[in-house]
Amino acid sequence: MIDPIVLKGFRDSLPGEEIPKKNIERKLESVFESFGFVPIDTPVLEYESVLLGKGGGETDKQIFHFEDNGGRKVAMRFDLTVPFARFLALHHAELPLPFKRYHIAKAWRGENPQKGRYREFIQCDFDIVGVDNAESDFEILSLMYASFHALGIENVCFHVANRALFNEFLETIGISEKSIDILRTVDKLRKIGKDEVRNLLVEITGDEKKSDMIISYITSGDGKDFEATLDAIVSLIGKETESSERMRRIFSYLKENGIEKFYVYDPSITRGLDYYTGIVYETFLTDYEAIGSVCSGGRYNNLASLYTKEVLPGVGASIGLDRLLAALTELKSPLAKDTKSADLVILYKPDEAEKAISTAFSLRMEGIKTDIYLLPQKKAKAQYEYAEKLSIPFALSFKDGLYELKNLKTRETSEVDSLSRVAELCR
Amino acid sequence: MIDPIVLKGFRDSLPGEEIPKKNIERKLESVFESFGFVPIDTPVLEYESVLLGKGGGETDKQIFHFEDNGGRKVAMRFDLTVPFARFLALHHAELPLPFKRYHIAKAWRGENPQKGRYREFIQCDFDIVGVDNAESDFEILSLMYASFHALGIENVCFHVANRALFNEFLETIGISEKSIDILRTVDKLRKIGKDEVRNLLVEITGDEKKSDMIISYITSGDGKDFEATLDAIVSLIGKETESSERMRRIFSYLKENGIEKFYVYDPSITRGLDYYTGIVYETFLTDYEAIGSVCSGGRYNNLASLYTKEVLPGVGASIGLDRLLAALTELKSPLAKDTKSADLVILYKPDEAEKAISTAFSLRMEGIKTDIYLLPQKKAKAQYEYAEKLSIPFALSFKDGLYELKNLKTRETSEVDSLSRVAELCR
Repeated sequence: MIDPIVLKGFRDSLPGEEIPKKNIERKLESVFESFGFVPIDTPVLEYESVLLGKGGGETDKQIFHFEDNGGRKVAMRFDLTVPFARFLALHHAELPLPFKRYHIAKAWRGENPQKGRYREFIQCDFDIVGVDNAESDFEILSLMYASFHALGIENVCFHVANRALFNEFLETIGISEKSIDILRTVDKLRKIGKDEVRNLLVEITGDEKKSDMIISYITSGDGKDFEATLDAIVSLIGKETESSERMRRIFSYLKENGIEKFYVYDPSITRGLDYYTGIVYETFLTDYEAIGSVCSGGRYNNLASLYTKEVLPGVGASIGLDRLLAALTELKSPLAKDTKSADLVILYKPDEAEKAISTAFSLRMEGIKTDIYLLPQKKAKAQYEYAEKLSIPFALSFKDGLYELKNLKTRETSEVDSLSRVAELCR
Repeated sequence: MIDPIVLKGFRDSLPGEEIPKKNIERKLESVFESFGFVPIDTPVLEYESVLLGKGGGETDKQIFHFEDNGGRKVAMRFDLTVPFARFLALHHAELPLPFKRYHIAKAWRGENPQKGRYREFIQCDFDIVGVDNAESDFEILSLMYASFHALGIENVCFHVANRALFNEFLETIGISEKSIDILRTVDKLRKIGKDEVRNLLVEITGDEKKSDMIISYITSGDGKDFEATLDAIVSLIGKETESSERMRRIFSYLKENGIEKFYVYDPSITRGLDYYTGIVYETFLTDYEAIGSVCSGGRYNNLASLYTKEVLPGVGASIGLDRLLAALTELKSPLAKDTKSADLVILYKPDEAEKAISTAFSLRMEGIKTDIYLLPQKKAKAQYEYAEKLSIPFALSFKDGLYELKNLKTRETSEVDSLSRVAELCR
């Protein structure tokens, strides 16, 4: 006998989890498509050299990689961004530009499993490539709002900043050569707090005064008034720049479409990754901030540069579906609780099989999600337990030439004389 | 510069292919759910020992397997059936029984790529576990019909047979100890023809007369009249059996629900795999038989026996999505041709950005799939080419305070004074 176990950090998804996950994916896909975004897919396995690129560092150790039967060094994708960059380099000539794509798929990392973090996880990415302007930045920001709105989440806050602006500030105070280390340190503010960030900044810069200036930059504003915060950091830089004007323009689009209250300018957001060059953002659920950002991203001016000379600026974001589902469950969202498998289940006696089967066939053709309990010889208790496990709201049975419809929650029964009436009652 | 190539036997899916693929998946999911089937998911990676089981033979050589960073021997799944057996062994106590699940996901095999066959492919599996009767066999057969019907395919023929009946026949002629080899040989009839099958049968059985009897069994009937074929093989066996009566019952359900014309009894269908024990089937598109079976499966009396003592009989089928999509494309199905990314695209002049963005926002909130061309400084030609590449049917622009809606196929334009009227025209 083989032990039927799964690997550490991996999970089965039972219907109670998979049904909500599918519902969320479908809602997201429908929103992405309402914005004219199109789906693509890429292979799960790629050449290791393609996925690691310049590579190095933590990611290498964490990826699943091996030599295939043909002696090729291959690896499983660890995100959807790197394969997308490779995809763009290979196909940009065939693609409509600007290219707006979404991709909902699994990725794998061998990191140590923690609560809500697994070695196999689902990413929902959406990006616009081939254009660098305020309108495309806004397109992604408004799609983020529309996504959470479609999921029934209004208590959401998008923390927005601009890396180019931050770099302009570092230039103003004469410390731009250390910007990568500084950005990575500032990115830890939420985790380690202001004092610890200041200590690290002093280590990096060797300059207490400049470290304090960085601290005042990243804590500018009150986290409420977008424009006041922007004014504050512009005054720290000493002038309006192209980047500050872009941020003002984006904010005016937010206001005009009545969604500005969901966005704050948070100068401490930098995103650790090297490739961001403009606007950056993270997303917090105001009822459950502790779970961390559920949607992050930003603008990169040349994502595919490892693979092609073609310059392809882009802007995009990524939703971590597993974390989002964990949050929705914690928040008792109706979406996470909806695990209904069918509108009704037909319960029948062994000698009613023909009638039961024809009834199921007709209801299904009418678009009613119809289950039929296939072990009619079982006791009533087993039959009702089955319906309960699957959250099926109605049971249909046969009685004196009529249909008997039982509401399994209220236990009320009603006699119904036609199938079309049954369909009506179940809808 | 890194060469942006993909591995041999792997493919990117561009929107022109991915949009139809998603549409097909959604239609299938919707049909599966209308029958009360629920989705599950399992990890892409499993312990090699779990996936290979008793294993041996061709499959071992074809799978992607390796040692992970923790020294575990792991493998990527090569189908959805083996992980499902492992899943059942692990979770059967928590699951509603009978358990009806569907699973649409990728699997991987390192076989040599051919037309329509890749190393990464998508399977759509649906099974009922925990019940062994004619009603559950019919449930799968009717779901197969409903699936193809939902995809707009009426020229489909389900070839049905019964392995238990075949084995009863082999017993009658006293040759049942060689049944596995015989079943595998008969399975090749379509590929290698009657004469070659007869030669192989003579080799296996060492008996020309018995080989001829097997040939007459597997060629019984005219491929049209289900019941006549069943009569013919029953007379070769010499009596009605439990299996023949089950097949008669299944056929009566097909007739009663008016779908019998899509099914033929084809005694040559055996399915190569060891685990089938009752009904078996393959599916052919009558307009494109050459592509082979697009949906196959059958009944197994104990799928999970490698992992648990619990006896779990089941019946199910699997659709190969890549092959089906290739067939739909070849047959010029509307489903394969529908690559529309949005209902309309907004084209605007650089100084109309605010109006364009608000218009897009409003239309999207009304549920209209709205794209907006984000490079307004480009020439009209580039803008129309963009719409054409994405098969967008309408372009909206602004003119004298009105909306101008252009049908991009007929090139007709109409002036419209309200957005709700635009939405109406696009629906």
